[in-house]
Amino acid sequence: MRLSPRALLAELVGTALLVTVVVGSGIAAQRLSPGDLGLQLLENSTATVFGLAVLIVLFGPASGAHFNPVVTLVERLLGGAGGRRLPGVEVVAYWAAQIAGAVLGAILANAMYDLNPVSISAHQRFTAATGLAEIVATAGLVSLVFALARTGRSALAAPAVGAYIGSAYWFTSSTSFANPAVTIGRMFSDTFAGIAPASVPGFLGAQLVGALLGAGLVIALYPERTAS
Amino acid sequence: MRLSPRALLAELVGTALLVTVVVGSGIAAQRLSPGDLGLQLLENSTATVFGLAVLIVLFGPASGAHFNPVVTLVERLLGGAGGRRLPGVEVVAYWAAQIAGAVLGAILANAMYDLNPVSISAHQRFTAATGLAEIVATAGLVSLVFALARTGRSALAAPAVGAYIGSAYWFTSSTSFANPAVTIGRMFSDTFAGIAPASVPGFLGAQLVGALLGAGLVIALYPERTAS
Amino acid sequence: MRLSPRALLAELVGTALLVTVVVGSGIAAQRLSPGDLGLQLLENSTATVFGLAVLIVLFGPASGAHFNPVVTLVERLLGGAGGRRLPGVEVVAYWAAQIAGAVLGAILANAMYDLNPVSISAHQRFTAATGLAEIVATAGLVSLVFALARTGRSALAAPAVGAYIGSAYWFTSSTSFANPAVTIGRMFSDTFAGIAPASVPGFLGAQLVGALLGAGLVIALYPERTAS
Amino acid sequence: MRLSPRALLAELVGTALLVTVVVGSGIAAQRLSPGDLGLQLLENSTATVFGLAVLIVLFGPASGAHFNPVVTLVERLLGGAGGRRLPGVEVVAYWAAQIAGAVLGAILANAMYDLNPVSISAHQRFTAATGLAEIVATAGLVSLVFALARTGRSALAAPAVGAYIGSAYWFTSSTSFANPAVTIGRMFSDTFAGIAPASVPGFLGAQLVGALLGAGLVIALYPERTAS
Repeated sequence: MRLSPRALLAELVGTALLVTVVVGSGIAAQRLSPGDLGLQLLENSTATVFGLAVLIVLFGPASGAHFNPVVTLVERLLGGAGGRRLPGVEVVAYWAAQIAGAVLGAILANAMYDLNPVSISAHQRFTAATGLAEIVATAGLVSLVFALARTGRSALAAPAVGAYIGSAYWFTSSTSFANPAVTIGRMFSDTFAGIAPASVPGFLGAQLVGALLGAGLVIALYPERTAS
Repeated sequence: MRLSPRALLAELVGTALLVTVVVGSGIAAQRLSPGDLGLQLLENSTATVFGLAVLIVLFGPASGAHFNPVVTLVERLLGGAGGRRLPGVEVVAYWAAQIAGAVLGAILANAMYDLNPVSISAHQRFTAATGLAEIVATAGLVSLVFALARTGRSALAAPAVGAYIGSAYWFTSSTSFANPAVTIGRMFSDTFAGIAPASVPGFLGAQLVGALLGAGLVIALYPERTAS
Repeated sequence: MRLSPRALLAELVGTALLVTVVVGSGIAAQRLSPGDLGLQLLENSTATVFGLAVLIVLFGPASGAHFNPVVTLVERLLGGAGGRRLPGVEVVAYWAAQIAGAVLGAILANAMYDLNPVSISAHQRFTAATGLAEIVATAGLVSLVFALARTGRSALAAPAVGAYIGSAYWFTSSTSFANPAVTIGRMFSDTFAGIAPASVPGFLGAQLVGALLGAGLVIALYPERTAS
Repeated sequence: MRLSPRALLAELVGTALLVTVVVGSGIAAQRLSPGDLGLQLLENSTATVFGLAVLIVLFGPASGAHFNPVVTLVERLLGGAGGRRLPGVEVVAYWAAQIAGAVLGAILANAMYDLNPVSISAHQRFTAATGLAEIVATAGLVSLVFALARTGRSALAAPAVGAYIGSAYWFTSSTSFANPAVTIGRMFSDTFAGIAPASVPGFLGAQLVGALLGAGLVIALYPERTAS
């Protein structure tokens, strides 16, 4: 699909709402289930599964529903559902919309819960183990999205990507951000889902490595594009 | 679809059962998980996701399964899945059926749990923050429903709308009523899901604002109607 | 479809496994979440949603996957997905297979949890309120199944019926058995999901009333059979 | 589909990630919900439902997404979705990839949670009751997979198999491994999902018996292969 104002609007609003879902449901979980970290994460992950799937359905026809800079990057490298590789200018415009949306989404979540619009998270999360987890999480996400694209099944992206994140919240030790824009947006809410700025660069690096690994796995599994 | 007794029956019974699901599962949650607000909301939201999706499947071919006055209003403004704009008389008849159904649904839930058939909720919920949340919640719901209609994917409405509400219960601070008829019906049960009458006007106003915002977003994203 | 040994085998094994799912997951819930009735029901209902949907997928092409005497009865009255009304002899054979299967399923669940193969439940559940709830629960189930059949969408039965029960567990005060065979089978396990024999006749009566109400609603909503 | 490096890669990586999902989400559940066994299993089973369904979607077109030696065995006996029976050499190659993958998956989960890469589980699980449960669990899984294959509905395998495991975690007393490779892999993590080596032979025997029972049920229900 051609770059257009409505595609950028979709990436901006879609990524904003994705972060609103993650951060907002995290705040609700924290308030309603104080002291029960497992139940909090179950509430947060359940809301995210549903919300992410819905956002892909809602914005997919307008922009492809990337909401994620590494998905945009790999679509440039491998081509998307229709085989088209994004031009560099579209990549940069998508990235800008995604990152701006992510920050706005955190602000909206804070405002809906009557918190300061911006608060910087103090939650340090990066370690060697969670860095490894982000590599795995991002490789899985990217390989899923582009395996679907290469086998003519992108119509399954909404439930499949939602389900993937629902699993990855739990099987990775990082709780699976797998998305540089969301990682950046989550800096701006000092609540359940927040990520301290000092942890962000490490996760962005891990996500880039994971994205390239995932792209490699897709090429190995599905060297040629097929119709479903 | 033409206004017909069976369409009004579907809106009446469908909206009634939607409120029965919300209120009834709230009572069950309150009784079975006393003191654990997070688990209560998880039980209530899970039951609503399933119940709402099923009601759309069950009543959709008879009435379009609006169950919601702002969906009916926006269908008049934008046209529904087939592009037809509801005439004003149908809008009013749908509204009457939805509101009557919502009240009856609360009474049925109360009766199934051996409570007084009618009790007025004392749960004040309206604040600036929850009002903002209802704007967001309703905008999201309306944009989802009409994005599906405009892109020829209304067959996905049942799982998509169910999933949307399952997420919005958690990411909004209001728990996302997003429906004036349900908001009114929930006045009539002084239980977990109840809404005090004094909170209702503010939410209705917020829902109207959200519906118009959602309609605007749909027009911006999908200016023309397309087949899927 | 014609009565055949494989259809009866499907009803027998399918109803058995349905009761095994309900009773077995109830025992697991009781053991793993002692004292937390809400979490127990969430575990039990989640397992049932998944299990029931899967059993309909697995046995549907062999027998229609009724697993429920009132579904069989209403299929005789209204006709099923293809419009065929079951002959009386098939109705009786289906009922026998369903009831025998339900009892065997309870025994299997008991055995898997190292309990006496048969124990009679002491859990009295019938009251006016839970009787009303069973009427509502069964009316909803029957109207869903036959609305799908009349509108050419029986392929949706597995997820829709699973989701229905997942909601009805919570919005009805009875936890929604909605099935005479399962109600009978649940007498034979004195565990979480058990039903005391003295409560069974009342529930069977309520289920019959609900089934007829549900059939009436289907006729009112969908007076003619249509393709999807 | 022909044996090929990419099919073996899919079985290796897919089975690895399946064990990573099971073991990793078990560790997360154990850490986040200490002392609450029911909630731990709910978190673990929810993550597995989503993860298994996604892995079938991701790797299915490359290898058939068996991830399970008894599925491979029964595909040799009955033929798969296309009716083709796997040659013996492919069976052995699939088994090797599955078992190697399962062990690697446990190591990856341990590493993501900063544990020793290999630790041998001390969790004794085998009893007569859990052995019976594994027979039932495996019979159900095998009958589901091959009923879908014989009735031309293998496109439903991802959600159906995911949902099956989500139910079987709860209705069987063993929590339903139903997979010799996963059973072996789970020896290598002394965490929530671990299985002590002394319990493994009994479960493998029960899984083999269950697989043959399941194959028999499929033949009885669906003696001939049909298109959907």
